[in-house]
Amino acid sequence: MSSSITGTKKHLRFMQQAFLLAEQAYDEEEIPVGAVIVKDNHIIGKGYNQSERLADATAHAEMLAISAACSTLEEKYLQDCTLYVTLEPCPMCAGALVWSKIDTVVYGAQDANAGSCGSAFNLSTNDKLNHQINVIQGIMEDDCEHLLQSFFEVRR
Amino acid sequence: MSSSITGTKKHLRFMQQAFLLAEQAYDEEEIPVGAVIVKDNHIIGKGYNQSERLADATAHAEMLAISAACSTLEEKYLQDCTLYVTLEPCPMCAGALVWSKIDTVVYGAQDANAGSCGSAFNLSTNDKLNHQINVIQGIMEDDCEHLLQSFFEVRR
Repeated sequence: MSSSITGTKKHLRFMQQAFLLAEQAYDEEEIPVGAVIVKDNHIIGKGYNQSERLADATAHAEMLAISAACSTLEEKYLQDCTLYVTLEPCPMCAGALVWSKIDTVVYGAQDANAGSCGSAFNLSTNDKLNHQINVIQGIMEDDCEHLLQSFFEVRR
Repeated sequence: MSSSITGTKKHLRFMQQAFLLAEQAYDEEEIPVGAVIVKDNHIIGKGYNQSERLADATAHAEMLAISAACSTLEEKYLQDCTLYVTLEPCPMCAGALVWSKIDTVVYGAQDANAGSCGSAFNLSTNDKLNHQINVIQGIMEDDCEHLLQSFFEVRR
């Protein structure tokens, strides 16, 4: 088996975990985004959007996953870690990911309005900042996009 | 007294509170940045950089102040609020401030490397995003800058 097939299988496996968290957000009437952070094939942090429940605009899935992963590692840097997230990170989350020195971000759906790994802004590979992130896009893209569309159609 | 003098006095008064928090960060061997959030002339949230102590790269002064203010108001939006912060917000913090729909950001020192209220990036008044922030810069600029310079000279 080639390493790229192994890579895709691994990406699918962990994006499915992020997707389950996005579905949990949906069930709790939050914008459905989920994230997991993986190191050495283990999930070391996870989160789903809880802006409404926590009444905190910073409580995005990625922010909660970063804090959880830092807590697991007892370390402020997430070197050799990969974030799987169902939606392209916004400026806040992409900024946080740069500061955390995370190795790779794998995301599902693109965000043309605020996506900051290339769509609306590029913070992930910006040479003004002191760290650049590998970005892989489009894993489970349709599923992630449909879940978001369905949320906005039903609830808003 | 003209309203602009009143405005400057008010800005100085609250920036001094943010500066005291930056000094507290300095004493705890953290990069010295402090922030307070003000509504109706009352501080409703405050924070200083705790990235080292909390081992969390997201624990910037502004993020902690936003979460504290949201908790005080039991509300995810910080409408009619002003953030006073000793250093120009980074992409993560500026992104968070946009999502919080804060009215105004007053900052001390500029950050040419990562400042996201106009210096390195412009997230505060970017029409791609769904909220724009009033930005006032340069209040206690020299004090804020000297504190940071002194930290980096002594500790690194």
